[in-house]
Amino acid sequence: MSSAQRPLILATNDDGISAPGLRALVEEMQQLGDVVVVAPDSPQSGMGHAITINNLLRIDKVNLHGPSEAYQCSGTPVDCVKIAIDKILPRKPDLLVSGINHGANHSINVIYSGTMSAAVEGAIEGIVSVGFSSLDYSLDADMGPARHYARIVAQNMLKHGMPTGTLLNVNIPKLPLADIKGIRICRQAIAKWEEELIERKDPTGRKYYWLTGRFENYDKGTDTDVWALENGYVSAVPVQYDLTAHHAMKRLNDWDLG
Amino acid sequence: MSSAQRPLILATNDDGISAPGLRALVEEMQQLGDVVVVAPDSPQSGMGHAITINNLLRIDKVNLHGPSEAYQCSGTPVDCVKIAIDKILPRKPDLLVSGINHGANHSINVIYSGTMSAAVEGAIEGIVSVGFSSLDYSLDADMGPARHYARIVAQNMLKHGMPTGTLLNVNIPKLPLADIKGIRICRQAIAKWEEELIERKDPTGRKYYWLTGRFENYDKGTDTDVWALENGYVSAVPVQYDLTAHHAMKRLNDWDLG
Repeated sequence: MSSAQRPLILATNDDGISAPGLRALVEEMQQLGDVVVVAPDSPQSGMGHAITINNLLRIDKVNLHGPSEAYQCSGTPVDCVKIAIDKILPRKPDLLVSGINHGANHSINVIYSGTMSAAVEGAIEGIVSVGFSSLDYSLDADMGPARHYARIVAQNMLKHGMPTGTLLNVNIPKLPLADIKGIRICRQAIAKWEEELIERKDPTGRKYYWLTGRFENYDKGTDTDVWALENGYVSAVPVQYDLTAHHAMKRLNDWDLG
Repeated sequence: MSSAQRPLILATNDDGISAPGLRALVEEMQQLGDVVVVAPDSPQSGMGHAITINNLLRIDKVNLHGPSEAYQCSGTPVDCVKIAIDKILPRKPDLLVSGINHGANHSINVIYSGTMSAAVEGAIEGIVSVGFSSLDYSLDADMGPARHYARIVAQNMLKHGMPTGTLLNVNIPKLPLADIKGIRICRQAIAKWEEELIERKDPTGRKYYWLTGRFENYDKGTDTDVWALENGYVSAVPVQYDLTAHHAMKRLNDWDLG
């Protein structure tokens, strides 16, 4: 960006345009630059990197974020980023912020999270991008600590940029600001969900299911995001969207592929 | 697996349980082991790693795949894998196959693809997993070449397994079998979609949009999947689901995160 210009910041999320976490993030970013909001018109948690290709999209201007131009979209978080870039923003933004998510997106959750997928899409588009998530799930959570750290991270990102092909995944522990020990750069913990499918019956007697699960951390490392969060730190994981497992290529070349 | 046992193979896709590509894949896999099919009840292209957490799921047994037990599910491809593991399969399968997708999933498409996300979920669960995609989009495509290579790859995977934390993304060019030069182990090309939002008006005059785009390959490398496919090879990219950008961690530690 030119030094004469205020930074242009794109804000989105997956909890929907009216979520308190987005409002808190937008208010904080308004102090750093000109913010444009493009966010889903309904909750889109767990949408991962889904895009809408078999259905139409609606886009409506709304007045929900004070001085910031804001649009709600019927699609997914990734759709919102694509639409913002192609249709709404006057130029490539200097920063994309996604969140503040109501709930954790550490470790393997990065791959299921609409919040993080929006940030991944920003990075694919060459935008300096970050997703913020608070470990406090409640809709009336105190967003103060998350706001504080979102601002510090955003200031650094506007100043330093990000290495090519990477973005940031920032999680904030559920602690009072005074009890948080600072930010730790981490790797994502090796963890997964152990699924439990809950069976119910509808009024006609037909079975249906709810997908639920138990989060299991299999990683004893002290350099992981789960460790950082459990020990009072904000975790910041650099994320890449090139999924090639380069280290595995040699071994596959030994296969008998006819 | 014990040598006395036939391999147990889980088959899924994102084009839906009745798609010809899945049928072709299941028929081929039935020659290698006992196949159980758990696939979406409707097309789920572009669903990425979405999971269904805000809605109920339906699961119904169907008779669509000859001797193989088959279930259709109202959820996403990733839901299908989770449900298969938690609810349907008698034990962890020896192989998960996803596809054969009607359309390419090379390069950046791995991240948007329901086909590939199902395979990623399998790998997260510790299952040897692979996604197959044919570059021939049509529903009445000749699946012969894709079947041939799916079988070779599956045989190798049953024999050799995959390095921990990885899976395979296999794309088959739209060529007669005799013209395909073989399989190349590749990295994913650096490419992206340049979005184009198409505007329409509904019968009431209200605007709506279709998300579309132009695929752009920015990668001149001859070791990429796009190069392989353009030059008559089947591409096989080892994929990892740990998204940590380890190489970026040092640089971030130089930030002022006060």
